[in-house]
Amino acid sequence: MTDFAATKAMFHMPEGMIYLDGNSLGPLPKATAARVARAVTDEWGEKVITGWNRAGWMAQPTALGDRIGRLIGAEPGHVVLGDTLSIKVYQALAAAIDLVPDRKVILTDSGNFPSDIYMAEGLIKSLGRGHELRIVAPEEVANHINNDLAVLMLTQVDYRTGSLHDMKGLTAKAQAAGAITCWDLAHTAGAMAVDLQGCNADFATGCTYKYLNAGPGAPAFIYVAPRHIKNCQPALSGWLGHEAPFAFDLDYRPGTGIERMRVGTPPVLQMAALDASLDIWDQVDMNALRAASIALTEQFIAGVEARCPQLTLVSPRDPHGRGSQVSFAFADGYAAMQACIARNVIGDFRAPDIMRFGFCPLFIDAGDVDAAVDVIADVMDNRLWDDPVYKQVARVT
Amino acid sequence: MTDFAATKAMFHMPEGMIYLDGNSLGPLPKATAARVARAVTDEWGEKVITGWNRAGWMAQPTALGDRIGRLIGAEPGHVVLGDTLSIKVYQALAAAIDLVPDRKVILTDSGNFPSDIYMAEGLIKSLGRGHELRIVAPEEVANHINNDLAVLMLTQVDYRTGSLHDMKGLTAKAQAAGAITCWDLAHTAGAMAVDLQGCNADFATGCTYKYLNAGPGAPAFIYVAPRHIKNCQPALSGWLGHEAPFAFDLDYRPGTGIERMRVGTPPVLQMAALDASLDIWDQVDMNALRAASIALTEQFIAGVEARCPQLTLVSPRDPHGRGSQVSFAFADGYAAMQACIARNVIGDFRAPDIMRFGFCPLFIDAGDVDAAVDVIADVMDNRLWDDPVYKQVARVT
Repeated sequence: MTDFAATKAMFHMPEGMIYLDGNSLGPLPKATAARVARAVTDEWGEKVITGWNRAGWMAQPTALGDRIGRLIGAEPGHVVLGDTLSIKVYQALAAAIDLVPDRKVILTDSGNFPSDIYMAEGLIKSLGRGHELRIVAPEEVANHINNDLAVLMLTQVDYRTGSLHDMKGLTAKAQAAGAITCWDLAHTAGAMAVDLQGCNADFATGCTYKYLNAGPGAPAFIYVAPRHIKNCQPALSGWLGHEAPFAFDLDYRPGTGIERMRVGTPPVLQMAALDASLDIWDQVDMNALRAASIALTEQFIAGVEARCPQLTLVSPRDPHGRGSQVSFAFADGYAAMQACIARNVIGDFRAPDIMRFGFCPLFIDAGDVDAAVDVIADVMDNRLWDDPVYKQVARVT
Repeated sequence: MTDFAATKAMFHMPEGMIYLDGNSLGPLPKATAARVARAVTDEWGEKVITGWNRAGWMAQPTALGDRIGRLIGAEPGHVVLGDTLSIKVYQALAAAIDLVPDRKVILTDSGNFPSDIYMAEGLIKSLGRGHELRIVAPEEVANHINNDLAVLMLTQVDYRTGSLHDMKGLTAKAQAAGAITCWDLAHTAGAMAVDLQGCNADFATGCTYKYLNAGPGAPAFIYVAPRHIKNCQPALSGWLGHEAPFAFDLDYRPGTGIERMRVGTPPVLQMAALDASLDIWDQVDMNALRAASIALTEQFIAGVEARCPQLTLVSPRDPHGRGSQVSFAFADGYAAMQACIARNVIGDFRAPDIMRFGFCPLFIDAGDVDAAVDVIADVMDNRLWDDPVYKQVARVT
């Protein structure tokens, strides 16, 4: 069992804030500042260039990858950190396309994160081989899996609605049709147990700045199933993916394992922050996390629906059909969210009308949910959103 | 004028160390720890998600880009930070190839950093349009510029020998032949004045962890000449390069300016470290830096040649023909460098036989050069390198 009162005490929370946006950027673990300071002062400052070996910087991307691997059900040695999620999506998709050279259709849904779709468009254009990116409604995905399909590329949890795809079922169906799967775990890694092995997933990617609490700009990760790694030709063939980076050969030879998905120099300071947040995650039972997350989201939905008839639930009502976020639609959702934020309940807004709230049992408890519902009800009951100051659309994050 | 005694005092140097490896990883500026701690504690810790706007994270890549732009002679608004150098090389080369669709030859030299060559190989393979990467000896580059040439892709300073390409002359010759140029400034940005505008360069890239002292894993930068940016179709079309990232459109529309070369979420903690090191660089006169660098390398060459006849200079003897490093060949160079490192003179080794020493006037002075020469002479005179402990090749960085 995981003691969530204990994990809550491991996070810094700004005074009075109820932070329901850990699905966008996780809050700061208290131990992170010291860990990052150590990387700056003791590692970089004292070891300088020798830090690559003596402080373990060179091995960080795979060492940290294994710790994330436990959370997502990956085999040890098959997850590596680096770059951004967009880059990792590009790598995964490029490798997947290579594995099915005679097919041209890449299937995704309109609930995929736009950057995944943009990266796919860019890759298809670069390849110039007539691939088609077919974008269907989330509920239509299964119906579009057929023998033309090259790659099924999905984000497991819809960033707007929180709707959860059936990874196991869709993977099996896609594979039965001869296709390869690429799963983006941006809103699942750290949000619930993921079982990549059990689902027989081919490729997966994810980020660490959301539920994994590694901070703004934290590195992404990529998983390649053991059966594919030897046939996986890196499109982004950087020197740290080379079999012998420091031989400085002029010919690229991919590394033997997941290392081949590395590209350039790893972001050591960001990796230190991830190291600190994984010290918390190492202690977390993912089934207990999921149970706690479902309890929080059920409580939130019940509270909001009882008190805010103006808001319409757009997340799946079945808790097993959604991730760890809850979204409500409201025509003036942007202003309403600004009014909540002004009252220290932090969620976010996604166009055109979605108020989005994330629930992370590591630092959010039932008391927080009650307090958040009180604020949202106050905003709605008293039309606090109907104030010009909240309607000015600033740069939205 | 720049007061180099004052800048030297701004760096932390491990006790007794003479650090001649700032061309590989720059040392820690004293102010960096506090700046990074502020990013962790005050920005991430207190502002959480609102840091993207309220702490200026979203604008950092272009704001820091302009400060680097001054050092490399770029127009304001045409440099952006992000990702790693390998990724930025890929983006620049992909965009350059697009500008000359009817040509197939990409010319580079065997002194280019291997990752640049690997990334080019990977891109050519993805494109599948019959491009040829022609790799010639550095001194043969000019002779291979002809009307078949699509892109001239070079690293301005050879990472092994320190030999400096004539950026202005080669750019003019390549452009006269109808080609596009991509310059990697890894060993020139912060090593000497660079004048991208004066050279009429097309694309440039570079890293910030070497001479620019932004720390291990610091982000890379890319420059696109103003005349090209509108025609530059990003191959890595990530959401932060989109014209309106937070509109979450399903269609990619590139940003209007250099922002289109952004890909994913910027590494905020690494950017904070860069911000601190640029506080030093903002004060540096690049012509004074170059004069000081030449004085140090001339002193070092004279000292080593006078006292170590076993070592053979492989860097250009003309100081205007080299960057800010000096390399000597020695058959047992690996062991000899280990012996120097054991005596706190830190340089590095590059296969097969190169002992490489970098000179950064910001923190190295004439007294350091004399002391380093004393140690190297001791290692050579007394065959201190001839010890099995130094001959064990560990992982080399």
